[in-house]
Amino acid sequence: MFSDRHKVLSDSIRRLIRRNAVSHLRKIVNKTHAADLSIVFPSLTMSSQLKIFGMIKDIEKKGTLFSELDQDTFAELIEGIDLDEVVEVLEEMATDDVADLIGRLPEEKANAILEKMKKEGSERIEGLLRYDDETAGGIMVPDFIALKEEMTAGDAITSIQQDFAEVEMPFYLYVVNEYGKLVGVISLRQLVVVSPETPLKEFMSTDVFSVTTDMDQEEVARIVARYDILAVPVVDNMNKLVGIVTVDDVIDILREEATEDILRMAGAGGEFVETKSVFKSTKIRLPWLFASCLGGIAAVFIVGHFEQSLKQYAYLAAFIPVIMGMGGNIGTQSSTIVVRGLATGVIHVREIWRVVYKELSVGLILGVFYGILIGAVAQLRYSMAAIAISVGLAVLCSMSVAALVGSLVPMLFARIRVDPAVATGPFVTTSIDIVSVFAYFEISTLLLAL
Amino acid sequence: MFSDRHKVLSDSIRRLIRRNAVSHLRKIVNKTHAADLSIVFPSLTMSSQLKIFGMIKDIEKKGTLFSELDQDTFAELIEGIDLDEVVEVLEEMATDDVADLIGRLPEEKANAILEKMKKEGSERIEGLLRYDDETAGGIMVPDFIALKEEMTAGDAITSIQQDFAEVEMPFYLYVVNEYGKLVGVISLRQLVVVSPETPLKEFMSTDVFSVTTDMDQEEVARIVARYDILAVPVVDNMNKLVGIVTVDDVIDILREEATEDILRMAGAGGEFVETKSVFKSTKIRLPWLFASCLGGIAAVFIVGHFEQSLKQYAYLAAFIPVIMGMGGNIGTQSSTIVVRGLATGVIHVREIWRVVYKELSVGLILGVFYGILIGAVAQLRYSMAAIAISVGLAVLCSMSVAALVGSLVPMLFARIRVDPAVATGPFVTTSIDIVSVFAYFEISTLLLAL
Repeated sequence: MFSDRHKVLSDSIRRLIRRNAVSHLRKIVNKTHAADLSIVFPSLTMSSQLKIFGMIKDIEKKGTLFSELDQDTFAELIEGIDLDEVVEVLEEMATDDVADLIGRLPEEKANAILEKMKKEGSERIEGLLRYDDETAGGIMVPDFIALKEEMTAGDAITSIQQDFAEVEMPFYLYVVNEYGKLVGVISLRQLVVVSPETPLKEFMSTDVFSVTTDMDQEEVARIVARYDILAVPVVDNMNKLVGIVTVDDVIDILREEATEDILRMAGAGGEFVETKSVFKSTKIRLPWLFASCLGGIAAVFIVGHFEQSLKQYAYLAAFIPVIMGMGGNIGTQSSTIVVRGLATGVIHVREIWRVVYKELSVGLILGVFYGILIGAVAQLRYSMAAIAISVGLAVLCSMSVAALVGSLVPMLFARIRVDPAVATGPFVTTSIDIVSVFAYFEISTLLLAL
Repeated sequence: MFSDRHKVLSDSIRRLIRRNAVSHLRKIVNKTHAADLSIVFPSLTMSSQLKIFGMIKDIEKKGTLFSELDQDTFAELIEGIDLDEVVEVLEEMATDDVADLIGRLPEEKANAILEKMKKEGSERIEGLLRYDDETAGGIMVPDFIALKEEMTAGDAITSIQQDFAEVEMPFYLYVVNEYGKLVGVISLRQLVVVSPETPLKEFMSTDVFSVTTDMDQEEVARIVARYDILAVPVVDNMNKLVGIVTVDDVIDILREEATEDILRMAGAGGEFVETKSVFKSTKIRLPWLFASCLGGIAAVFIVGHFEQSLKQYAYLAAFIPVIMGMGGNIGTQSSTIVVRGLATGVIHVREIWRVVYKELSVGLILGVFYGILIGAVAQLRYSMAAIAISVGLAVLCSMSVAALVGSLVPMLFARIRVDPAVATGPFVTTSIDIVSVFAYFEISTLLLAL
């Protein structure tokens, strides 16, 4: 189990620091993966963090630790490390990771680091920093292999060994024309199989996917996931190859986006913030509850409006919870299905009427079913047909409106390019509550007056 | 945009079939990626599907199409294709994908296919079918490169070219001892850099992650995501290397699991079923609504119990919606944070008291805030201190209980190893509704009697 392992690791590190068991500590630190260290770090004091950081022998491991740490921990940690050493570590890291880290630092610190870095490296990083964080440009790495289409297979092999020795994992070899435009792709295997004098353009595959620098990262991730590829090339608006987005970054994006959607739908903020502070969490959750509070206050006035009916038939109140509950729940089902369907590509924005029609049908069928069921309970409990019929009709009305609103609102939001996950929370639940309560009292006042 | 592209593709395929424009159709079919064809397929008639399938020239593309199609479409399609051709396509596919497809077919059909397949291939597939679908064993591929630790780098290179030519993407080269046990890992790059007579065990990395065949696929996916690796080796209970799980499968698993969690939390089934049938959707969503219906009926009896208070102070009813709404919404926030936190590893099962304590604190703070706010509204509207105080206290009580139940229930479910996403739906919402309403009427009856 992950959790147990990290608990054990954190405990033993703290124990060893207390006992000042330097050599033992050094051994553990260097045996542990940086990703695991990064989980343990926030639970240690700053001086312990610095001590452990100093013990890491492998400079690349220091880099991995940097990029795995959460933003706050990283920013605090590097305040305690000599700037020269920070730069030394950053220079060993992949450019996109460095750009990511620097992009999140206060501007002053970021500039100090960029100034210290070697010119070539800092230019590449500044190049990446130009792009929006959440686009293909912001997440791409400039480390890829691009070969000229006129080159022979034999020359290509030599070039890979000589010119591109620093490219970590050459997933694909991209082929460009004389203007640097992406024209094809070949695999390492193909290169070895053909005879050495064959020019690349004769056996390259011209059917190559690419994305543009300004494409949203979520869309990039979906393309990589859909076509089961390990990396996708990124081109600028002249179709010039400028970078690649690799599958490991795609995994992180897909997880983040799913988490964002889930939390937004529940009105609990967009991302997991450091879970330690009660105050911070309260602040994030307060606004959405405020929307629901306003809806609730509106309901106070609506129900208050029917005070006469309530005075006469007090048990009308007894059905408010079940009517609200049934509407709220089916509305959540509909909006969840639509939001997740849109996110995974199962549902398309264009299908708005098909989707809404289907949800409305489900809402009507379930509304009739539960309307009859709950109406029957009302009849058994109070033996008054007008009440039973009002309750049944109110359930039917509430559930079908809920299914309609729950599917229509996120579809409309998606169409005007607003994140549909944000919509489901406040809008849908609050409006369903108000409609349900209003419909119920209108129907019952009408029927009871007959 | 994806959606638009598929709509256009589907429309033009149907138009070309109607016009019987064979050569044009053939061109489009062979230019389109199998993943895109698979999305369009369900919208076509069976005869069109068969016609298009017959036009695909590349047998590997036929295989990709097979594995990308949804289960029902695939099962129907192969009924129309000659068994020999099906087998021919399957034999070109990766073993894990074949096992996956065959595992979902009716037994009779599966056996017929396995019998027709070449002995070696069918044995490997039957080997994979032994493992549970959702474990490392069920998702691994047996296509990996394993080299003996005594081998030299030079011999290793020859061996890779000769013995492992069919391995598609050699991400990592695994090193095993004389008993086939996994002892290390090297990269293709390292192999080229060292001098040819160096034995592998002298430069291999012994720090190799592995998972066992029975590990849950979700945990495997989390390991691959956490350590940013492209493949993880799978060992049996003797630590013998039997397969690898690759990153493309991991992406699919992470997306599926996120979807499952989201839908389960909303009580809308576990996975996206084919979205065409209203009846099917209704059937999936009915049961959870039933749980909420039972809760609502319980509320009928609870509120009914306080008929006397309601007759006297009809406006008590006006606050039911806001009290239920505030409790329900903060409960959803808490349970969503906990469920997603557990799924992504931000929250650990062991931290039950820390997490619940924190949620309860947030619930209390927000409860005091909104209790005062809504109480003040009540005072302004009805100018009766007893009502205002009851409403305020009921909001406080409802919100803190909701935060407590919303976090405690999923944590407890996770501890007894039941999917916490299932818990959040029915249990949490229904119990919060009942507690809220009951607390409200108890408090107000008490205060109004004073």
